Amino acid sequence: MAGVHAQAIRQTRARIVSLFDPKRGNAEALAKEVGARSFASAEEAILCPGVDAIIIASASHTHANYVRLAVRYGKRVMCEKPLTENYEAALELHRELGEEAKRVFLAFNRRYDPGHRRLWERVRSGEVGDVKQLVIHNRDPFLPPRAYIEGSGGQFRDMMVHSFDLTRWIFGEEPVSIFATGACVFEDWVGQAGDCDSTAALLMTASGKIAWIAEARVSSFGYDQRIEAHGTKGMLLSDNLPQSQVKLFGPGGTDASYYATDALKLFFLDRYGESYAKEIEAFVEVVLADADAPVNVHDGLRSTYIGEAATRSFKAKRPIELNDQSLFADAAGEVGAAAG
Amino acid sequence: MAGVHAQAIRQTRARIVSLFDPKRGNAEALAKEVGARSFASAEEAILCPGVDAIIIASASHTHANYVRLAVRYGKRVMCEKPLTENYEAALELHRELGEEAKRVFLAFNRRYDPGHRRLWERVRSGEVGDVKQLVIHNRDPFLPPRAYIEGSGGQFRDMMVHSFDLTRWIFGEEPVSIFATGACVFEDWVGQAGDCDSTAALLMTASGKIAWIAEARVSSFGYDQRIEAHGTKGMLLSDNLPQSQVKLFGPGGTDASYYATDALKLFFLDRYGESYAKEIEAFVEVVLADADAPVNVHDGLRSTYIGEAATRSFKAKRPIELNDQSLFADAAGEVGAAAG
Amino acid sequence: MAGVHAQAIRQTRARIVSLFDPKRGNAEALAKEVGARSFASAEEAILCPGVDAIIIASASHTHANYVRLAVRYGKRVMCEKPLTENYEAALELHRELGEEAKRVFLAFNRRYDPGHRRLWERVRSGEVGDVKQLVIHNRDPFLPPRAYIEGSGGQFRDMMVHSFDLTRWIFGEEPVSIFATGACVFEDWVGQAGDCDSTAALLMTASGKIAWIAEARVSSFGYDQRIEAHGTKGMLLSDNLPQSQVKLFGPGGTDASYYATDALKLFFLDRYGESYAKEIEAFVEVVLADADAPVNVHDGLRSTYIGEAATRSFKAKRPIELNDQSLFADAAGEVGAAAG
Amino acid sequence: MAGVHAQAIRQTRARIVSLFDPKRGNAEALAKEVGARSFASAEEAILCPGVDAIIIASASHTHANYVRLAVRYGKRVMCEKPLTENYEAALELHRELGEEAKRVFLAFNRRYDPGHRRLWERVRSGEVGDVKQLVIHNRDPFLPPRAYIEGSGGQFRDMMVHSFDLTRWIFGEEPVSIFATGACVFEDWVGQAGDCDSTAALLMTASGKIAWIAEARVSSFGYDQRIEAHGTKGMLLSDNLPQSQVKLFGPGGTDASYYATDALKLFFLDRYGESYAKEIEAFVEVVLADADAPVNVHDGLRSTYIGEAATRSFKAKRPIELNDQSLFADAAGEVGAAAG
Repeated sequence: MAGVHAQAIRQTRARIVSLFDPKRGNAEALAKEVGARSFASAEEAILCPGVDAIIIASASHTHANYVRLAVRYGKRVMCEKPLTENYEAALELHRELGEEAKRVFLAFNRRYDPGHRRLWERVRSGEVGDVKQLVIHNRDPFLPPRAYIEGSGGQFRDMMVHSFDLTRWIFGEEPVSIFATGACVFEDWVGQAGDCDSTAALLMTASGKIAWIAEARVSSFGYDQRIEAHGTKGMLLSDNLPQSQVKLFGPGGTDASYYATDALKLFFLDRYGESYAKEIEAFVEVVLADADAPVNVHDGLRSTYIGEAATRSFKAKRPIELNDQSLFADAAGEVGAAAG
Repeated sequence: MAGVHAQAIRQTRARIVSLFDPKRGNAEALAKEVGARSFASAEEAILCPGVDAIIIASASHTHANYVRLAVRYGKRVMCEKPLTENYEAALELHRELGEEAKRVFLAFNRRYDPGHRRLWERVRSGEVGDVKQLVIHNRDPFLPPRAYIEGSGGQFRDMMVHSFDLTRWIFGEEPVSIFATGACVFEDWVGQAGDCDSTAALLMTASGKIAWIAEARVSSFGYDQRIEAHGTKGMLLSDNLPQSQVKLFGPGGTDASYYATDALKLFFLDRYGESYAKEIEAFVEVVLADADAPVNVHDGLRSTYIGEAATRSFKAKRPIELNDQSLFADAAGEVGAAAG
Repeated sequence: MAGVHAQAIRQTRARIVSLFDPKRGNAEALAKEVGARSFASAEEAILCPGVDAIIIASASHTHANYVRLAVRYGKRVMCEKPLTENYEAALELHRELGEEAKRVFLAFNRRYDPGHRRLWERVRSGEVGDVKQLVIHNRDPFLPPRAYIEGSGGQFRDMMVHSFDLTRWIFGEEPVSIFATGACVFEDWVGQAGDCDSTAALLMTASGKIAWIAEARVSSFGYDQRIEAHGTKGMLLSDNLPQSQVKLFGPGGTDASYYATDALKLFFLDRYGESYAKEIEAFVEVVLADADAPVNVHDGLRSTYIGEAATRSFKAKRPIELNDQSLFADAAGEVGAAAG
Repeated sequence: MAGVHAQAIRQTRARIVSLFDPKRGNAEALAKEVGARSFASAEEAILCPGVDAIIIASASHTHANYVRLAVRYGKRVMCEKPLTENYEAALELHRELGEEAKRVFLAFNRRYDPGHRRLWERVRSGEVGDVKQLVIHNRDPFLPPRAYIEGSGGQFRDMMVHSFDLTRWIFGEEPVSIFATGACVFEDWVGQAGDCDSTAALLMTASGKIAWIAEARVSSFGYDQRIEAHGTKGMLLSDNLPQSQVKLFGPGGTDASYYATDALKLFFLDRYGESYAKEIEAFVEVVLADADAPVNVHDGLRSTYIGEAATRSFKAKRPIELNDQSLFADAAGEVGAAAG
């Protein structure tokens, strides 16, 4: 991700000043390319003159400490997701940060996808009235490697966490309960690796809004990333992205095709490439305005918590209450039990 | 529905011979129009010479007895849904009919909608591999009158029963568990009348196939009747039906419309009109071939049972097992309890 | 077409009373089916008691005389297109009929296609402002038999005449010039039979409105029947008709298909079947209201005239003026020369 | 355009070394931004050490001399369109350049639009058989200023030249005749400024391929840039580009909208922005490979010539033969006469 962010930064008013990577060669190469300095420690890189903000794109288990370090030295931070390697660590960091949690930008890039954001803006404008139902489709185009799945914590924590964040963001209201289920139906080895490849969840908010989440670790027709927001005055759909607007009219491969659109963007840097650039732009704006982060450690913690609850719901075969009040107390206990 | 069916029969090899309606005037008027005879009792109408098959389109609570009568006199029957006024009556009729249950045609008209059926045929052909996920959208265009809702038994029994039948039909496999939830979010009076206007369910089969059902008693953009069948080699969508293929390209009502399709077919006789004609055609074929009914009392009973289970799941806030073995024994007890 | 019309009549307030066919067996069979009488001569059929209106669906060269006969006996008439077997005969009939020409309904069925008519209504409503450009695509799904092409008078007279009528109808203004061209590029035998299989025309009205017409005797993707009406405030498209709203999402036959719609309706009775029913309905309304025909002998003559001019333009490789004033005088001479 | 090209160059293996602009301040500002040197004359900029290739984005009447200068000093050149300020100057330059004409890259950017290019590649792959018909829609979203129109040479030379280039490129065959017409129907002042705002042309190749061109200087629904290529085995459409894949389902502005796509990209840098980047990439490849330019002075001359012929056809109200052999002899005379 460092290369992706570096490219995005070039198109903003920001400049890369210093870099740190435990593999020094990487940092040096990138430093040379962008005209920055590379350092032997994160601390030195943070303290380098001219640094206003840092971006953390390191291994997950190192995120929390880099966030602490940056905050200690008074720098703004954008941290790649997941916030930490597990829920307990996230909870601990959230507590430590206190009010500062609102200022740490958490990189939920899908909020910056132009289509999803346009949907969100139009929902906010009141164009479709009050949104009462959300249907989110989240299907990856290809199965990841087995090692990835084994280290992922399972589909509810790894993939569905994006859908939980989108649900909270679009409804503008916290879900209060979740029922989640799943199975391994596409590739046996996913089940042998301890995960589902087909998962589902239903969430409900206190006011009765319902979200349906439909996911799979593989999709026969490409990267399926759709959101339907059903309001009282209309429905908005953020649809999938074809590679081009070229369409074939013809009998095609089956005797039943009249016209066929172009294939979907498959690789995540094609499908969500723009979102990374927009996210960096938003972070630069936040830093320049000295403003709170619109998506922050609290959001990261909350979606992680729902991911834990989903995992527990799946295992216990029953819905789980998402009690906001108990988020940092009872809930932790409950989730601890679920994880055990 | 009698008029709708009469119109459909004209386009088949069948002919209307006799008619019965407790309101004799209705039967006489229709008899005159189609060149048939009207009778003072159902029994006489059934026994009228030349009658091979009868169609029951009377009040729900009368269905069971007319089915019994027709079967007793050796006639083929097509019965409008619901099979009976409640699950217990359906169970009793099913037991009485024994093997004959397979020969009574139950009018689940959505199976005969040209789009839904084309999807089903293409699924059966193997074109999209093995279908693992189903997403069914079922939103009515308008709220029904309050009296209708009060007598409907609730949205799970009244509307969602169609989605249960579609799920069983397309998967070709029985669901083994259901979790259902709902709320009243569109119109307060629906809740005051004891019903939800926004409902959701997740069903799972023994092999791990998942169905998402998304419903509402009202829709901002028309009669929303979509089915997505996700297979291992492709996905098939039976999409909504616009009134025409005329499209407006222009700025339209908002500053964000490029092209707008024509409005959806709204009234059920527009949207599902063809399904009624195709259903009658299928019934006539079954009678002429002296074959079992492709959708029958067993299907009616099974979907009714899932509707009972959905209602219970909603009330008890937990998933319900749909044990096929116990359908006529324990399940009845369970559902009895749920209904209490 | 007799069977098609008979079926359509059943759904109106009209009834078939009498029939005539030189092949008496045909008329007798249909008479039996619909409960009408068949006669040994057209005159007897026309004079049969109860007859208010007649429909002419006989061979083209017989149309004119049957129209004369019906008009002489004071009956309303609907005549299949083409009005006559050539332009001179049409001109002669038009002159003879005088004011009565406006009362003879000419069966340009495409005006009654639900999509095309909806476009026309929305154009008339002012929704897209003033329509300045029309693009008409008219491609047949299959090549007709060689004998048909040899007797057709060529694609400009045979197929493009429909597009001329649509142009006049939608613009509500007469074209004043035409340039037409064509070639044989799809199947050599069409050229050997003396026709083009790929034709084009540009028409302009006095106020500067332009129509592009794009035609072919065969289409690789089905029956291509599109109209684009570009107005000052929007554009309306009457798009092609898929067989269903089922869509396949998948890699399909090429590596570039994401979603594929269902195939187009191919056979003209599928694609334009509804137009025949609507046309009969309209005729019945006209007869009951004793009104002028909304599409009549004048329209038939005018489109035939443009077809003659198109043929001449193609042969002479230059645009032809369509002088309204000279329609029945100089123009006839000009077209006569062109035909020579 | 200098800024657009400079941005595009950054994403290639090329580097900007030297700059010249008669307004020295502009060149100095850009030079500073990109780390290049600015010069007081074009000659100095061309001769600056390290320069392999130059890009001409100056006023049209200066193009020819800069091309000559660059060629004289052995540099590769990419020249913005139009090649020169009129046809005679283009013809003269073409003659002077001789074989070198093939090496001068002419910036017909639409060939590098990802959608149009994907269509072209798929046509070349044989996927749709042999392409026999082309329909090109070219409508600008907004009227340009009056001064622009007065200096444009008219819509046939200014806008339609793009469609002529696309026609030649996609057919891979020269048109041999053209008929063009036009009118002023959208805004009176365009006619007062001596131009049409609605234009049409039909082109035919020696083998009978037909191109329909439909243009307007303004469009009610945005930047309308579509190409339909009808082949013997299928049709390919390069469709318009919506701003996003967000769709509104709802009653919308009229009572006839079911779903509405997002608005089209309007500004040319949005719609064709990617084409400029791809074009620069292609030029860099050509320079590095020391290859002929895939779109060159011959293409520029040929499209300019067809633009002259179109203008003449419009004025003379007759089709014009596009005799390839006479391109540099008789044709020049003919066009000279037409322009007079």
